[in-house]
Amino acid sequence: MTATVVLATRNAKKLEELRRVLAAEGIEVLGLADVTPHPEPEETEHTFAGNALLKARACVEATGLPTLADDSGLTVAALGGMPGVRSARWAGPGSSDEENLALVLRQLADVPTERRTASFVCALALALPDGRSEVIHGEVTGRLTMWARGENGFGYDPIFLPDGHDRTTAEMSAEEKDAISHRGRAIRAMVPILTELLTATERDGER
Amino acid sequence: MTATVVLATRNAKKLEELRRVLAAEGIEVLGLADVTPHPEPEETEHTFAGNALLKARACVEATGLPTLADDSGLTVAALGGMPGVRSARWAGPGSSDEENLALVLRQLADVPTERRTASFVCALALALPDGRSEVIHGEVTGRLTMWARGENGFGYDPIFLPDGHDRTTAEMSAEEKDAISHRGRAIRAMVPILTELLTATERDGER
Repeated sequence: MTATVVLATRNAKKLEELRRVLAAEGIEVLGLADVTPHPEPEETEHTFAGNALLKARACVEATGLPTLADDSGLTVAALGGMPGVRSARWAGPGSSDEENLALVLRQLADVPTERRTASFVCALALALPDGRSEVIHGEVTGRLTMWARGENGFGYDPIFLPDGHDRTTAEMSAEEKDAISHRGRAIRAMVPILTELLTATERDGER
Repeated sequence: MTATVVLATRNAKKLEELRRVLAAEGIEVLGLADVTPHPEPEETEHTFAGNALLKARACVEATGLPTLADDSGLTVAALGGMPGVRSARWAGPGSSDEENLALVLRQLADVPTERRTASFVCALALALPDGRSEVIHGEVTGRLTMWARGENGFGYDPIFLPDGHDRTTAEMSAEEKDAISHRGRAIRAMVPILTELLTATERDGER
């Protein structure tokens, strides 16, 4: 059996990351660009889970297909938990990864290593055409470096040093990062739920 | 009787604001520049009250004089309560009022009026040579404008529209602002405590 799920994102790197994990489960992953219409609601919620559900439900409503949506970001203790839900536009709407990361480094320039604690958090929502939904959280704790290091990954990866590691997530291979990342953790926790629900849905469809 | 209290700040505008209110009570206010040594501890706490107490206690310890210290800032709902304790250095250590304010406007460029709620919060700490201390909070609720307006005040005044007003705090006179401001409220709430404690201290000294 091949089950299909939409990942409600245009972010090619997120799509690739999810496809890599779900391919092994025989689950095909479509991106927003593969479905019509392409619903993209504004992320108006104050929590990762709220935004993830918002996006997943809008896509189910538009396409009729089971949908995964994630909202994730960096929470920095010295910034009161922000950039949080505003991680992708921390320096303002339309800002680049480099601008957002440079702003965080500038804002924390006077904050010493022991107070640079931060986490990557991912809320992954699954919404089904019948109205059911699930949200799973993944988190990886660590601290921020003083300068960007590494060329891999995206977002704040070049300044995030996961606890127990001496390389930033941008200095790790995709496989190494998946194994410890907030999104990797959320996806792995979601796989059995996804498999169970998609299989049950297909069985229902066959009756 | 003339009682003396140190305001542990180098900010001339804060000093002037406090002098204006306390002159009527016969309380003389010295600034950090008027006392030796000039203690200026790093603001390492995560709360306004924590930082205010830290500064007040350091100054009492160094000078032996009753000391007031405030920590205040802007809390923005859409920024998870930040800039908060980092209001004066939001764009990074050494940043100007203009840079901090411009950054907040840029970060909120996609946030509509109804979600631009914000408060000015002031924690005012009084510490006495005998070890006693008090902390008072003052708050003024409002929302942020889309553009800076007005030339008075300082900090984020040009973008802060207090609830029930149609001018920013930078478009108000000093007297109008004192009447509603977070710092004005905290200072007025502190005056009876200050008068009581300083008078009691002087009586003790005369015995």
